[in-house]
Amino acid sequence: MDKMTFKTPLAIAIAAASLGVSGAAMADTTMEERLAELEARIIAAEQRADAAEQRAAEAEQQRAATADIESDAEIEERLARVERYADGEEGFSFNVYARSGLLIGEDGKSAEGGPYVTPAGPEGGAVGRLGNEPDTYAEAILNYRMRFDNGAKALYRTMIADGTTSSNDWTGGESDINVRQVYAEFSDLPSFTGAFENASIWAGKRFDRDNFDIHWLDSDVVFLAGTGGGIYDMQLADNWKSNLSIYGRSFADFDVVSSEDPGLEGNTDNLILTSNNYFGNWQWMVNGMSAADNDTRDIGAGQEAAENGFHTMVAYHGDSFFGMGEGSYKAAVLHGQGLGAETKNIGANGDLTDDASSTRLALYGTTYLAPKWRIAPSVLAETSEDRFAEGDSYDWATLNVRLANELTENFEMQYEASYQMIDIDPQGYSSRNEVDGDYTKFTVAPTFKPEVGGFWQRPEIRLFATWSDWDDELNDYSATDSFGSDEFTGSQWTFGIQSEVWF
Amino acid sequence: MDKMTFKTPLAIAIAAASLGVSGAAMADTTMEERLAELEARIIAAEQRADAAEQRAAEAEQQRAATADIESDAEIEERLARVERYADGEEGFSFNVYARSGLLIGEDGKSAEGGPYVTPAGPEGGAVGRLGNEPDTYAEAILNYRMRFDNGAKALYRTMIADGTTSSNDWTGGESDINVRQVYAEFSDLPSFTGAFENASIWAGKRFDRDNFDIHWLDSDVVFLAGTGGGIYDMQLADNWKSNLSIYGRSFADFDVVSSEDPGLEGNTDNLILTSNNYFGNWQWMVNGMSAADNDTRDIGAGQEAAENGFHTMVAYHGDSFFGMGEGSYKAAVLHGQGLGAETKNIGANGDLTDDASSTRLALYGTTYLAPKWRIAPSVLAETSEDRFAEGDSYDWATLNVRLANELTENFEMQYEASYQMIDIDPQGYSSRNEVDGDYTKFTVAPTFKPEVGGFWQRPEIRLFATWSDWDDELNDYSATDSFGSDEFTGSQWTFGIQSEVWF
Amino acid sequence: MDKMTFKTPLAIAIAAASLGVSGAAMADTTMEERLAELEARIIAAEQRADAAEQRAAEAEQQRAATADIESDAEIEERLARVERYADGEEGFSFNVYARSGLLIGEDGKSAEGGPYVTPAGPEGGAVGRLGNEPDTYAEAILNYRMRFDNGAKALYRTMIADGTTSSNDWTGGESDINVRQVYAEFSDLPSFTGAFENASIWAGKRFDRDNFDIHWLDSDVVFLAGTGGGIYDMQLADNWKSNLSIYGRSFADFDVVSSEDPGLEGNTDNLILTSNNYFGNWQWMVNGMSAADNDTRDIGAGQEAAENGFHTMVAYHGDSFFGMGEGSYKAAVLHGQGLGAETKNIGANGDLTDDASSTRLALYGTTYLAPKWRIAPSVLAETSEDRFAEGDSYDWATLNVRLANELTENFEMQYEASYQMIDIDPQGYSSRNEVDGDYTKFTVAPTFKPEVGGFWQRPEIRLFATWSDWDDELNDYSATDSFGSDEFTGSQWTFGIQSEVWF
Repeated sequence: MDKMTFKTPLAIAIAAASLGVSGAAMADTTMEERLAELEARIIAAEQRADAAEQRAAEAEQQRAATADIESDAEIEERLARVERYADGEEGFSFNVYARSGLLIGEDGKSAEGGPYVTPAGPEGGAVGRLGNEPDTYAEAILNYRMRFDNGAKALYRTMIADGTTSSNDWTGGESDINVRQVYAEFSDLPSFTGAFENASIWAGKRFDRDNFDIHWLDSDVVFLAGTGGGIYDMQLADNWKSNLSIYGRSFADFDVVSSEDPGLEGNTDNLILTSNNYFGNWQWMVNGMSAADNDTRDIGAGQEAAENGFHTMVAYHGDSFFGMGEGSYKAAVLHGQGLGAETKNIGANGDLTDDASSTRLALYGTTYLAPKWRIAPSVLAETSEDRFAEGDSYDWATLNVRLANELTENFEMQYEASYQMIDIDPQGYSSRNEVDGDYTKFTVAPTFKPEVGGFWQRPEIRLFATWSDWDDELNDYSATDSFGSDEFTGSQWTFGIQSEVWF
Repeated sequence: MDKMTFKTPLAIAIAAASLGVSGAAMADTTMEERLAELEARIIAAEQRADAAEQRAAEAEQQRAATADIESDAEIEERLARVERYADGEEGFSFNVYARSGLLIGEDGKSAEGGPYVTPAGPEGGAVGRLGNEPDTYAEAILNYRMRFDNGAKALYRTMIADGTTSSNDWTGGESDINVRQVYAEFSDLPSFTGAFENASIWAGKRFDRDNFDIHWLDSDVVFLAGTGGGIYDMQLADNWKSNLSIYGRSFADFDVVSSEDPGLEGNTDNLILTSNNYFGNWQWMVNGMSAADNDTRDIGAGQEAAENGFHTMVAYHGDSFFGMGEGSYKAAVLHGQGLGAETKNIGANGDLTDDASSTRLALYGTTYLAPKWRIAPSVLAETSEDRFAEGDSYDWATLNVRLANELTENFEMQYEASYQMIDIDPQGYSSRNEVDGDYTKFTVAPTFKPEVGGFWQRPEIRLFATWSDWDDELNDYSATDSFGSDEFTGSQWTFGIQSEVWF
Repeated sequence: MDKMTFKTPLAIAIAAASLGVSGAAMADTTMEERLAELEARIIAAEQRADAAEQRAAEAEQQRAATADIESDAEIEERLARVERYADGEEGFSFNVYARSGLLIGEDGKSAEGGPYVTPAGPEGGAVGRLGNEPDTYAEAILNYRMRFDNGAKALYRTMIADGTTSSNDWTGGESDINVRQVYAEFSDLPSFTGAFENASIWAGKRFDRDNFDIHWLDSDVVFLAGTGGGIYDMQLADNWKSNLSIYGRSFADFDVVSSEDPGLEGNTDNLILTSNNYFGNWQWMVNGMSAADNDTRDIGAGQEAAENGFHTMVAYHGDSFFGMGEGSYKAAVLHGQGLGAETKNIGANGDLTDDASSTRLALYGTTYLAPKWRIAPSVLAETSEDRFAEGDSYDWATLNVRLANELTENFEMQYEASYQMIDIDPQGYSSRNEVDGDYTKFTVAPTFKPEVGGFWQRPEIRLFATWSDWDDELNDYSATDSFGSDEFTGSQWTFGIQSEVWF
């Protein structure tokens, strides 16, 4: 028996059960002796069993006390809840888009720049953004998600945003900080059934959920934002999901055509009814808009601003690189008339004429050319007529290629080439001159990342050198734009460092 | 024995203990045989017990290893701490009040509106807010709570707020975003004992903790805010809790009466000593205030602005619907003189004369009329004399009823009727004209909620249609207010969509 | 047997094992009886064992089910992750510096004040801040930390800040709210090895990581901030850590010297190359800077603004109170020339001449004089020549002592004495007059804290009374500064309440 060690109540019970006698010792004993030994052993076992029972009872009490604190299942449930909070599925969460850095010219001073730097820029003609951004722009998105006992969910979102070209830390007094989004969205509503079962509804000020962009041009394909309300994800048929919303936008403090009161200012609203429809990979968007009294706006002698507009987009969201390999692509054709002729910032331009007409093409794809080489070509082009004056025309087309060579876990070389054709005949609108010319930009950007691996991985820290050039004629377009300003007339080198973050 | 399966050490121990023989097999065996069988079975049991002991020891080792990682009690403690963080009891938390939506008139343009739209509005004469709000207004409240080893707690709170009537997303340059609160509050201080045992102290810029409102009128009953410090919840007697604080408010850049320097601007501070006292359901508030040199302010020929003020309020916070059923009600009478004659925004109006005198009544209640029908009637009324000019009088009274019919888990119909009597004789102050007339508003608002069930449940998304009308005479009150402005002269229909959120 | 209670499968097993017979009962039974009894007991035990086995199996199934939910080790891992989120090591976190309160003069109106209130203030000559701050200033720092699979870490930080002397809650329209920091920083990059193994890189707009201050003067020793990028913590030798960064700052909208175009405004950038080097407790900082075309700036007839600058600092970070006891101290000597002659706000002043030269001394320490008495003396002094005009001189020196007497767990008396010598000969720059005089300030501040115990413990709520005085001559320095303004000419009493918070 001394070979046994009684570590726990369980082991004691086991030992007690064994009533152990070795087979060898049993040979020559009488039956009486054998029985007496068995009985003695049973007595000993009984005593040990008493002790074991007591220790077992104590263990059970401890176990019960622990169970009082929390069962494993309860712990798991409580942990799952705090995980939802940590992960932003419930309660507060924080999202960001931000960029900040220096863009310095050969003269050691801040350089003009930005994807909208060319004469086509004001009409949406973006060029490549890499090594071409002069500003600090930051969005702080504060979300709060709620879950209700009946299964319903609600999201509140607000966005505080600021943009500045000042490199100083303190920009009080000149700051543009403002609140770009304030809205609530409900989903999983138990009383929504049938086609509305998976629908969500929203109201407030927001960026439309279904906006999408060509990242490398810093250009949305469509950017619809304003104040209103709507419904997402109505299932109108097996393969047809539909959204319907109304957005208002303010046309504020514009000059009114008035012989009696030359300083009169007008204010009106552009009300936009919008519907997005998804059929598999296809998206069809339709927008109608109306801005009462916008025809009183002074956009120049003999011209009349539109009161209404129409806009439509057909887009394809591809799961491959144009069917040629792994990756993704998006292609969209947009057309708008009247107030709808601003094809990207839907309903945001009140200077458009009633005859204004625009057609835009947007296209991009991403893929790996080789294991460490990524490529992302894109095209954005528009033709527009009778935009701000009878007989005017605004034609431009941008070709852009971003290339990245992943060299280590934390470093890649990025390259961007951008080319834009510009042919604008503004018919004297806003003292602009007719121009026809090209813009070219090349950028090389050694880039650091916490983990390389794809065009959508952020944050990034980049160094860059950019060479850009354009036809002299483009310097004469407008006295108020960048081209043609002091020391910015073409053949420019710029250098800089920048971080870009989103999550 | 073969019917037994040895799943675990415990089961093995049990099996070993049983030394099992079936009763039937025992009948005709000799005693020797029986004893030998017993002994043999004990040997077998012993072997099994050895194996069981080994397996039990292994189980114990595993159990010990798990215990090394973390005992259940420790896990529970750590989990409780992160739960406090998730729930905002410790660390960062986020609170919000926000509304955003469209208010569109029959002409398809943004309409004038707001609970303070009538001539009584500037003096606090609010009307019903449902279907009557033209703005996006959002408060982002960032809290941080600390717990100290000695049991003390501290709260830091800051509030960033913005309001705009623009429907556009980007309002940089015209934004009103500002910081409305920045304060620290300490509680559970171990060296605070006796009457101070449950007291908390604070300093900074804040909304007073004990402000309360009539939600449906967007009007606080008292709204005290500014920069200062104080102490809450002194227990002066068994049934008497008392607060004492000092608040400063800035009277900035006002015109000074001066024959020598006509463009001179003055700045002064209104220092408000305030005490709230609670006796059961009763609240008695007393405020005294002083603004040195405010008598130099130019408020019109022959008038003199007050340098001092007094304000008091008696309020009852009811636990039922006016004693008639389940629900709640609040009733308050307020009176102020001099700078205290602004009865709601305590100490915020420096144009009041030394003789100014105001008395206000505030009243509201909520209850269920029937299982799915909620009602909330309210009254706000004030009479005021010698307010901004000798002999002037500002009398107004608002009656408002909000009604809600809960139709599904996520949908209710809301109705609001609002009526205001206005009788103002401004004695020429600020080019205002004497008016006497009524204002009426009816609103119907189909409302979506994640979970219906009470007047305080938010978020909400509402559609609404509102009809409002007023006596023509009210259009002549002031050239700078809404009534009488272009296309806003009475009998107005407005429509819209809006979200309202708080948490 | 009836004395046994079978609480659990384990107890049953034990009971079954005991086969209990009391010794007394065994005396006179025959062997046959004894054997029969043993056998009967074995049968009974077998039945109990069957039951026990079944219950044990059930317990095992339950145990297995729990294990399916989550093993303890998995729970621990998940808990550790949410703890990182709660503690801000991963995901969102919130940091703050804030102060808010009232500073009221004997006349009951807001008083002038602030550590930079004297004629030396604009050049960085701070005096003691206790009981001397008239503003609400708040920084809200929003951080987001990411961990990547490869071990790399990234930090995104943005800071929203606002400062105002208004006591009102709503300051929309006059608010200075702005975004002071927007940057990303990467560390633990696996492809960084050797001297770069522990290095981190950053880009964006930020306060430099290695800025440090004399808290009681509200003065950084160096404050470098702007937009750029760099690398921290290169290990250049065993005892040499080095940082290298470039910062840009904007010199905006300054008047340009131009006979042709008298209203011309200039904009340029000050590019600052900065390196900090640490050798044990020693820090050596070197800064070179260049602002192209800053020499076109109009700083007064016959003067020319610098285009370049140089700045250096040697500092010692002491682990004791000047070697005399427990505590800490810091000592720094700074020297700058040209644009580097602004010794604290590096590169932030574009009005400095090419000949400008400044040398500054900064010194402070903290220790306990006795168990409940803390002391913190500090010195800040500068001599500067040819600063903004040929032959000018700006000499000033501040001595400050903060003393605290910890009286309870939550209360201490704080005292501050501050003395400044000022000797400025501005040579007519900016219509300033030559002055030579002294400033003195005494403050007593009863202070509440959640937990006393050191100079760096916050939050605090303070009441205070301050007496300050200065030579009359100092009132004549400038028509636009505080000294000499209405009712602020010396021998001033000010009173107030304030909270200060950081975490």
